[in-house]
Amino acid sequence: MFEFLEIIGVAAFAMSGSLTGMHKKLDLFGVFVIALATSFGGGTLRDILMGEKVFWLKTENLIYIYVAVLGYLLAVFFHKKLEYFRVSLFLFDTIGLGLYTLVGLEKGLVFGFNPVVCVALGTITACFGGVTRDILCAEVPNLFKQEIYATICVAGGIVFFGLKKINMDDDMLYLTTSLFIIAVRLLAVRYKWQIKPLKMEN
Amino acid sequence: MFEFLEIIGVAAFAMSGSLTGMHKKLDLFGVFVIALATSFGGGTLRDILMGEKVFWLKTENLIYIYVAVLGYLLAVFFHKKLEYFRVSLFLFDTIGLGLYTLVGLEKGLVFGFNPVVCVALGTITACFGGVTRDILCAEVPNLFKQEIYATICVAGGIVFFGLKKINMDDDMLYLTTSLFIIAVRLLAVRYKWQIKPLKMEN
Amino acid sequence: MFEFLEIIGVAAFAMSGSLTGMHKKLDLFGVFVIALATSFGGGTLRDILMGEKVFWLKTENLIYIYVAVLGYLLAVFFHKKLEYFRVSLFLFDTIGLGLYTLVGLEKGLVFGFNPVVCVALGTITACFGGVTRDILCAEVPNLFKQEIYATICVAGGIVFFGLKKINMDDDMLYLTTSLFIIAVRLLAVRYKWQIKPLKMEN
Repeated sequence: MFEFLEIIGVAAFAMSGSLTGMHKKLDLFGVFVIALATSFGGGTLRDILMGEKVFWLKTENLIYIYVAVLGYLLAVFFHKKLEYFRVSLFLFDTIGLGLYTLVGLEKGLVFGFNPVVCVALGTITACFGGVTRDILCAEVPNLFKQEIYATICVAGGIVFFGLKKINMDDDMLYLTTSLFIIAVRLLAVRYKWQIKPLKMEN
Repeated sequence: MFEFLEIIGVAAFAMSGSLTGMHKKLDLFGVFVIALATSFGGGTLRDILMGEKVFWLKTENLIYIYVAVLGYLLAVFFHKKLEYFRVSLFLFDTIGLGLYTLVGLEKGLVFGFNPVVCVALGTITACFGGVTRDILCAEVPNLFKQEIYATICVAGGIVFFGLKKINMDDDMLYLTTSLFIIAVRLLAVRYKWQIKPLKMEN
Repeated sequence: MFEFLEIIGVAAFAMSGSLTGMHKKLDLFGVFVIALATSFGGGTLRDILMGEKVFWLKTENLIYIYVAVLGYLLAVFFHKKLEYFRVSLFLFDTIGLGLYTLVGLEKGLVFGFNPVVCVALGTITACFGGVTRDILCAEVPNLFKQEIYATICVAGGIVFFGLKKINMDDDMLYLTTSLFIIAVRLLAVRYKWQIKPLKMEN
């Protein structure tokens, strides 16, 4: 179940990257690179920081590449329809956000890192794909300017370790944390929760 | 022979990076950084993704640094002449493209990766230097906008594994693949082969 | 003493990153990311290039994260005052520059790298934080355009190995090198030492 949802996250991020690339009038190869970068950017930075071989290089993980390519192809062939499907795409992206955070948290735990570092790894896994996408398009990362996004991953990480402390069962722990992230993200967009920039003189 | 050509590739990429930096009116140190980033960016990302120590840190590979510095110095002292030499530079850059792709493919094979991953590593080795150059100059990577470029590396990788399957001899395999990449690149620029961006409403 | 000054460097870079982010009108989370990226970017790239686990992931180095967070909070709460304190901030930043260069040089030596590579690692440690900050803000890195900066780190590295050759005592060696870097940087800003871009026709 967990893996199935993770794969949906990969496809959703690949589709959202493809749409961004097409809007930027990149050629089809450029769109492809943006799709992969959006999908794999977060996990790639996480693995690099940990000094590990990157996950999508491993033969047993080839499925991720195929799913991302599939997401790209879907976006290219059905991009007119997908524009109408913005809502479903947004939902996929939100599910991906929740699941990627958990994947990062878990990987951090498995490697024995401190909770602070695990929360950072979870947030990076979930958010850095979008940052890579924006850097490649030479834009200030959207992450820094829109409704709260990465902050939700940090909050989700804190919830995760809070619930872990009271010995919640693993399945419940994962379910609750990801639902928390997904719900807060939906509410944040619905009610335009934002962190205001500070006013700076001049 | 292979090494000799690889070294020409390093120098050519360093020169092309230097010319870009000088056009951007960077100071001489900035130009130096762009030169190194263009020359080493692809191999650096490849090694980082593989979780390996980066190739140019190794003492036995110091020659690459010296060659890149030489390329930089040539570009700085002879930049007026080099502008007339655009054609020869373009040739060097194209040779570099073919050779770097092979270097990446081979390194992937040596480490036992799957062909799909090897093709990705070859393409990254050949193309990411230029992407780094453009990111440092805060531009949308040229890669995504000009005549087909990275796509040729992918095609070269497919040719490589096709020929390998029919048990072509190693030397012939390398020669054929790199000539294929170089020839397609020359034709692509000559006849302006492009992948059209998709038309997006609005 | 060395560690104490290094920690001042972390805080100073975090503050300078925060001020940049606030000027860019990023939200408070975006400012936080820029603060961390400025503080940790250089050491992170150094460790990644070396194929090592990144320093701030290690539990014994959590102190760096806390200090950077502190620097961020100081910048956010006292940003109006800090604007007046530009001079002291600049001083901190300059101290950080000198110390980070030494940290990189030393780490390179410990891992047995060649002096050329050690100088590169020292320069990257000191300068890449600022480059990351500027890339995330979609600007051409300041590094390439202002008074000499990275060049001073390279010069500092050369001084370091020169003094090492004449068997200077370690403490004196560190002190002299960092004071050299700090003094040259102060003079460079005071007298606007710049490396002129080359004039390019057209």
